[in-house]
Amino acid sequence: MQSTHSPIRIGIVGYGNLGRGVEAALAKNPDMATAAIYTRRDPAQLRPLGAGVAVHGMDQLLAHKERLDVLMLCGGSKDDLPRQSPELARHFSLVDSFDTHARIPAHFDAVDAAARAGKTTALISAGWDPGMFSLNRLMGEALLPDGQTYTFWGKGLSQGHSDAIRRVTGVAGGVQYTIPVPEAVERVRSGTRPQLSTREKHRRECFVVLEAGASAEAVRAAIVGMPNYFDEYDTTVDFISAEELARDHAAMPHGGFVIRSGDTSASNQQVIEYRLQLGSNPEFTASVLVAYARAVHRLQQAGQHGCKTVFDVPPGLLSPKSAAQLRAELL
Amino acid sequence: MQSTHSPIRIGIVGYGNLGRGVEAALAKNPDMATAAIYTRRDPAQLRPLGAGVAVHGMDQLLAHKERLDVLMLCGGSKDDLPRQSPELARHFSLVDSFDTHARIPAHFDAVDAAARAGKTTALISAGWDPGMFSLNRLMGEALLPDGQTYTFWGKGLSQGHSDAIRRVTGVAGGVQYTIPVPEAVERVRSGTRPQLSTREKHRRECFVVLEAGASAEAVRAAIVGMPNYFDEYDTTVDFISAEELARDHAAMPHGGFVIRSGDTSASNQQVIEYRLQLGSNPEFTASVLVAYARAVHRLQQAGQHGCKTVFDVPPGLLSPKSAAQLRAELL
Repeated sequence: MQSTHSPIRIGIVGYGNLGRGVEAALAKNPDMATAAIYTRRDPAQLRPLGAGVAVHGMDQLLAHKERLDVLMLCGGSKDDLPRQSPELARHFSLVDSFDTHARIPAHFDAVDAAARAGKTTALISAGWDPGMFSLNRLMGEALLPDGQTYTFWGKGLSQGHSDAIRRVTGVAGGVQYTIPVPEAVERVRSGTRPQLSTREKHRRECFVVLEAGASAEAVRAAIVGMPNYFDEYDTTVDFISAEELARDHAAMPHGGFVIRSGDTSASNQQVIEYRLQLGSNPEFTASVLVAYARAVHRLQQAGQHGCKTVFDVPPGLLSPKSAAQLRAELL
Repeated sequence: MQSTHSPIRIGIVGYGNLGRGVEAALAKNPDMATAAIYTRRDPAQLRPLGAGVAVHGMDQLLAHKERLDVLMLCGGSKDDLPRQSPELARHFSLVDSFDTHARIPAHFDAVDAAARAGKTTALISAGWDPGMFSLNRLMGEALLPDGQTYTFWGKGLSQGHSDAIRRVTGVAGGVQYTIPVPEAVERVRSGTRPQLSTREKHRRECFVVLEAGASAEAVRAAIVGMPNYFDEYDTTVDFISAEELARDHAAMPHGGFVIRSGDTSASNQQVIEYRLQLGSNPEFTASVLVAYARAVHRLQQAGQHGCKTVFDVPPGLLSPKSAAQLRAELL
């Protein structure tokens, strides 16, 4: 541990589930510390997990530039990060969890220009997908070029699909779980490289609270037939009470598998599997962001400025241990 | 693919199972090519997999310095690599699979001095353990600092334990498989962080051909009681014919699991699992070496000389794809 150094000072920007997860993760990493939380809400209304953690308005960020080593951007990929990451990368090293896959190249370019101009280091799209799953897709392909990669998600709560359910007329509340089909996972693990349809890979499970007087059958039909979200899947809809929803479905589990199946010769199949079983999706995502913040700080200090992704970071930089210690203990 | 560049020219040093695996892996990577094989045996006696692949004596290596970009050292960790890697790193960039965990720090220092002097880049201890398993031990610890790491090996053929069996009086031949105990794997996956004894984690399965007149019970007793190798494990010994040994036990499967189980807060457990199911241990090890040879060539060209391990290599360098292509396709 770098116990003789002062801790890396982290500014948390945005304090929803992810921001709280970052604060919790920092408490598990003694070489890093929450310097302050920055919010668009009224700072007086926020209740940080840690006693005595400072909360400021977003407008204070620039004035605190000298007190912060790395910012953790904990806003959303739709409206917050496309604007915040390039703006802030001009002044701060930072980590974000931008997860709109199709827009990553444009986001990278915008952040890269800002970070180079500001001589900062900014790592985008950290987390588990994009993030750890991406890393395992890359490694699988590089190690077994004659092969096929499969990504399965779940069992996990999908925020986007839960939102879609809640927009259906007659629905008072609800959640949706994405579930990998076990038979499909087993076929992939067998090394036979099956072609799998959307329906064969995942099924969807919905728990719905009806509004008073709403028709269960009409709601069920509206959900299972919903284009893009549900129509290509086998979907089950269970109706529950508001109490059951609050009691049994408040956690945010998620996870999944990245499996690479490939041949190294005519007679030999190889299968690489990476699996996550996450009790809390935002807390795990936050833990990934925190480990990459350590790497970002080191890269910035080494003069490696610009935008980075998980593909660019030597794994040893994620650990608080020295390179010699890692070789002796973990290689 | 870097189709406009000429392929990276690989010299294979040593042509046993691993060397043959490297030649097979190179055939799957169009941006790389087997330039030649170097052997201590009579070159005329070697039969490479590829028609027309040149075979030379080891004494030709230095004279071929300008024809080779990276050497793949495919000798053993006991007698070959401790001498070869430092000697050759003075003249060549190289990759080895040095796997004596306790001696890695000393091997690193010797290779580092040679590679710095020769302005080459040498990556040691590539493969899957050390190698991919090491990487996952490091990542697990960095992402979930409040947690515990478990490594299970198998089901797989253990060369060291098979050799130990064959030294027992009365044994004409035999193989040993290391098998993870499924109940132990499930307990670890559950996130409860169990303390597991050696006996609880793995069992050992032996298939033995007796010499004529040897006592099965004496052989069984000698095997299951053998200190260090078998006495701490539940071991089964099955007696088979020489024909069965040749027919059913010629493959070299292996694999295993690295599981990190940790807590991100008082209420949430997270489990990360990396699993390999290898049809051929030497062919997979060779595939890892080949991907790292690509990275070593790039690091050398970028002036990053000295000894490296898998902990030092940005994952993107393992892929033939450009950084922009990786971000667009795999992130």
